[in-house]
Amino acid sequence: MSESRSRVILGLDPGTASTGFGVVSQNGNRMRAVEYGVIETPAEQRLEQRLETIFAGVGEILERHQPDATAVESLFFNVNVRTALAVGHARGVALLACAHVNCEVFEYTPQQIKRAVVGYGKATKEQMMEMVRVLLGMVECPYPDHAADALGVAICHANTAVLRDSVNRSLARGGGKQVGR
Amino acid sequence: MSESRSRVILGLDPGTASTGFGVVSQNGNRMRAVEYGVIETPAEQRLEQRLETIFAGVGEILERHQPDATAVESLFFNVNVRTALAVGHARGVALLACAHVNCEVFEYTPQQIKRAVVGYGKATKEQMMEMVRVLLGMVECPYPDHAADALGVAICHANTAVLRDSVNRSLARGGGKQVGR
Repeated sequence: MSESRSRVILGLDPGTASTGFGVVSQNGNRMRAVEYGVIETPAEQRLEQRLETIFAGVGEILERHQPDATAVESLFFNVNVRTALAVGHARGVALLACAHVNCEVFEYTPQQIKRAVVGYGKATKEQMMEMVRVLLGMVECPYPDHAADALGVAICHANTAVLRDSVNRSLARGGGKQVGR
Repeated sequence: MSESRSRVILGLDPGTASTGFGVVSQNGNRMRAVEYGVIETPAEQRLEQRLETIFAGVGEILERHQPDATAVESLFFNVNVRTALAVGHARGVALLACAHVNCEVFEYTPQQIKRAVVGYGKATKEQMMEMVRVLLGMVECPYPDHAADALGVAICHANTAVLRDSVNRSLARGGGKQVGR
């Protein structure tokens, strides 16, 4: 297997109140959670200040772990406009932090993430949590939800990247849409 | 009139492809456009890079003009989720640029802006353009649309701030919701 070098992937689940992050290190088929958690911002703060906290927080994680790539969930369509705008604000500054350190961002639909983690595009939240735990060799399910979701999208990128590597060796290019392309 | 000091207001109309900006200087009831235009980003660029361009562009304008306040249009609800997310990305990094230089951001609804500029909440786009031109003593209507809209929201803040100053002198606090409050 040519996949001997360890690779680090940052998964992000941006939100104005709480931005989940999960750092996954991958060595061949083995994965582990290096760090995960949430960046929380107080509701009473002004929006600009909350965005500043998210930007600085994501920047510190990027600095600390120097990931090879960042993965985020792509736009979801079962939310209202207000939520989309709030997520957009947080997502914008999180992606900006990645741009500042030249870390490429890949996005995946919820179905791609479920398929990559559970093997089934309609998996429940509980099935996702349990598979994230198993795949990362954790004793307990990661907590809170935003952190678990961030680990999920990181795993998705890790698995898709392995797949892409093997596909590249034969023919075509698969999975993992780059953000904005 | 206590309003003798000149005040500088930055209006922003954020968008991923094109972010309009308009810098208005106000001295009592007199206003003029100091600079206006758009920050454009190429569609073929990755989203992170486009956000980096917007962030840097807004940062340069803030640095150059050191505005006393920034004004943006509040969330609008007659757009779809995809548009809201795209605007949210650009809006997030624009607000972050303001936070970096401690410039307070105020937001106004489209109706507030129309009332403050034209005196009528249901004014047409053409009426808005024409009044922006007249109020700023310009020979021709500002162009392109995003720049004109940015000047409009800056005028709205200028007028509302004057109103608020006089209201403050008597009783209560009027108009101009601070972002995120």
